[in-house]
Amino acid sequence: MAKEFIVTPWNVSGDVDYKRLINEFGIKEIDGPLLKRIKKITGELHPFLRRNIFFAHRDLNWILDEYEKGNKFFLYTGRAPSGHTHLGHLVPWIFTKWIQEKFNVNLWFQFPDEEKFLFKENLTLKDTEKYTYENMLDVIAVGFDPKKTKFLIDTKNANLMYKEALKVAKKINFSNVKAAFGLNNESNIGIIFYTAMQAVPAFLPSVLAKKNIPCLIPHAVDQDPHFRLSRDVVGKLGYYKPASIQCRFLPALQGSSGKMSASMEKTAIYTVDNEKIVAKKINKYAFSGGRDTIEEHRRLGGIPEKDIAYQWLNFFEEDDKKLVKIYHDYKSGKLLSGELKAILIDKINNMLKKHQKNREKAKKQLDKFIIKG
Amino acid sequence: MAKEFIVTPWNVSGDVDYKRLINEFGIKEIDGPLLKRIKKITGELHPFLRRNIFFAHRDLNWILDEYEKGNKFFLYTGRAPSGHTHLGHLVPWIFTKWIQEKFNVNLWFQFPDEEKFLFKENLTLKDTEKYTYENMLDVIAVGFDPKKTKFLIDTKNANLMYKEALKVAKKINFSNVKAAFGLNNESNIGIIFYTAMQAVPAFLPSVLAKKNIPCLIPHAVDQDPHFRLSRDVVGKLGYYKPASIQCRFLPALQGSSGKMSASMEKTAIYTVDNEKIVAKKINKYAFSGGRDTIEEHRRLGGIPEKDIAYQWLNFFEEDDKKLVKIYHDYKSGKLLSGELKAILIDKINNMLKKHQKNREKAKKQLDKFIIKG
Repeated sequence: MAKEFIVTPWNVSGDVDYKRLINEFGIKEIDGPLLKRIKKITGELHPFLRRNIFFAHRDLNWILDEYEKGNKFFLYTGRAPSGHTHLGHLVPWIFTKWIQEKFNVNLWFQFPDEEKFLFKENLTLKDTEKYTYENMLDVIAVGFDPKKTKFLIDTKNANLMYKEALKVAKKINFSNVKAAFGLNNESNIGIIFYTAMQAVPAFLPSVLAKKNIPCLIPHAVDQDPHFRLSRDVVGKLGYYKPASIQCRFLPALQGSSGKMSASMEKTAIYTVDNEKIVAKKINKYAFSGGRDTIEEHRRLGGIPEKDIAYQWLNFFEEDDKKLVKIYHDYKSGKLLSGELKAILIDKINNMLKKHQKNREKAKKQLDKFIIKG
Repeated sequence: MAKEFIVTPWNVSGDVDYKRLINEFGIKEIDGPLLKRIKKITGELHPFLRRNIFFAHRDLNWILDEYEKGNKFFLYTGRAPSGHTHLGHLVPWIFTKWIQEKFNVNLWFQFPDEEKFLFKENLTLKDTEKYTYENMLDVIAVGFDPKKTKFLIDTKNANLMYKEALKVAKKINFSNVKAAFGLNNESNIGIIFYTAMQAVPAFLPSVLAKKNIPCLIPHAVDQDPHFRLSRDVVGKLGYYKPASIQCRFLPALQGSSGKMSASMEKTAIYTVDNEKIVAKKINKYAFSGGRDTIEEHRRLGGIPEKDIAYQWLNFFEEDDKKLVKIYHDYKSGKLLSGELKAILIDKINNMLKKHQKNREKAKKQLDKFIIKG
């Protein structure tokens, strides 16, 4: 019997079956021929593509068709501020940065600072304002090109966005959002309306440029219901339906169920965590695929498929050879669980050291990214 | 048996029973002692008060208490652009102008240019933009003090309004708007959210001034469901609950059912109609309370209570003595239906002549009223 799991923009729980998700959401698997096609343009494949972390898409072949005809797309992704950025958030951003570089395209990065305020009883707009600032630093730290990247903050850029959201909202009814997001009669009218705001960056650049520009949205797969709902609407408004490319969730430290949650301290490592905290969290909480005793581990070997330290290295160790060696050493029992965790701690702390340095510099770069209006 | 009628912000039909409305909406009648209290401050009573056209209120005594303590209120009213302004729209504006003058207070005038776009299938945002401009000219023509009057246009002032609307929206759910406005699962998510935007001007001046200021909303009674819903919410946000004062509808030319509709040409006279059109509409369409033949009319007399020309004079002939004379002359049969219509035509054309002159001047005054931001 299939295990139960839930994937909506506001709730991811259970053991996610990505094969089933592909069918249920009506997205397409990224297969060999498509990877080959991307590689022909980019010269190399990002590890997230090689390792099937970005695993599904909508209309990606069409985006490449247009690109090859000289009709460049723009990228759109985002972050709903409700807490500090964790490593799971970085996954689509790192990939988006790679796409920006390889295809030399513009990025519109949305900060829907109302979404989590509307969804979470105790979160205030003061909180989301603070986290918008903190999250912006993290986005900049990933290394986006300031000349080709614009930040859209829903409450601050409402003069640009609200009018466009209305055009979307007129074509979506309550039954639609009930079905797509599991909302009900007790849902507040803000969260009911919200999906219209999330649709806007998919066509706002076309509105502003007064010409139709293809849009590609890299995102974690839980956001798909928004775009499933708004794709057709955006099409009816006379713009290209946005294409998308979807990634899996970085598993929580405790195990592979669901995704990391920014609101549950122990399941996540934050970009602002220091070296000691990183080491402590991984050593203490990262679910191990190792055996009960060293002797047993040497004899039977670890189980990388169940081991969170290994799973995380699968996301963040870009060197395939190193990763394969770790896999075999762990599986054969040569590498102990504590040693594997030490490799991960080292990897993450190196990443974060660089990230935190960039994050400090970002404080002076904000003006280059934020749009007025 | 009571006749059926409907009064919601988007549908007024049937013979409105204002006594029943007072009970159903939970508003209060404006009675003798309250009129006396107003007169003590204003020196005189506006005909709309003397004639019970503004007939109900919420918390008006509290507004006067605060006023007498030196805690001045601000006024808030509005117009959702979907067509040209007709005489029915002018009724609350004329009264609001009188209040502004007599109490020397500020007015925030909202143009929710999304409301009718969301509600009417074929209305575009281009249409509502055009009518926002046209309607603004009419509002200015009424004679508001440019130093004390600010226009809020929802799509153009969204940077000021959207964030505040979110605070309201978080506290209203789908069940609430279903009950208040008769929305259903097929209602679009824009119109579901909209009431939050209509609540904003009731406390935005307090937000901007960083102090709590009482708010009085003069409006036609069909708008009450919005404020019934948002009053408590605004209170919970820490601002004064808005008070309100409600007027009856100027009846449609064809008869006293429902209200004038800007979208039904024959039921209304527009502020842009010329003298000939006014005469033609009144002569052709105004429902008459006169008799079938002149001889019968002289013998039995007319019925002013059923006569639209008389009903309209009850709104627009400010001189009580003149109005009483017309009433008796018509009821006695001395004044014929055609003669009564001629009096109304003259009255309306004089009003509109002055209005249209002001409307032309208004084109150069827009900048004084529109707020940036």
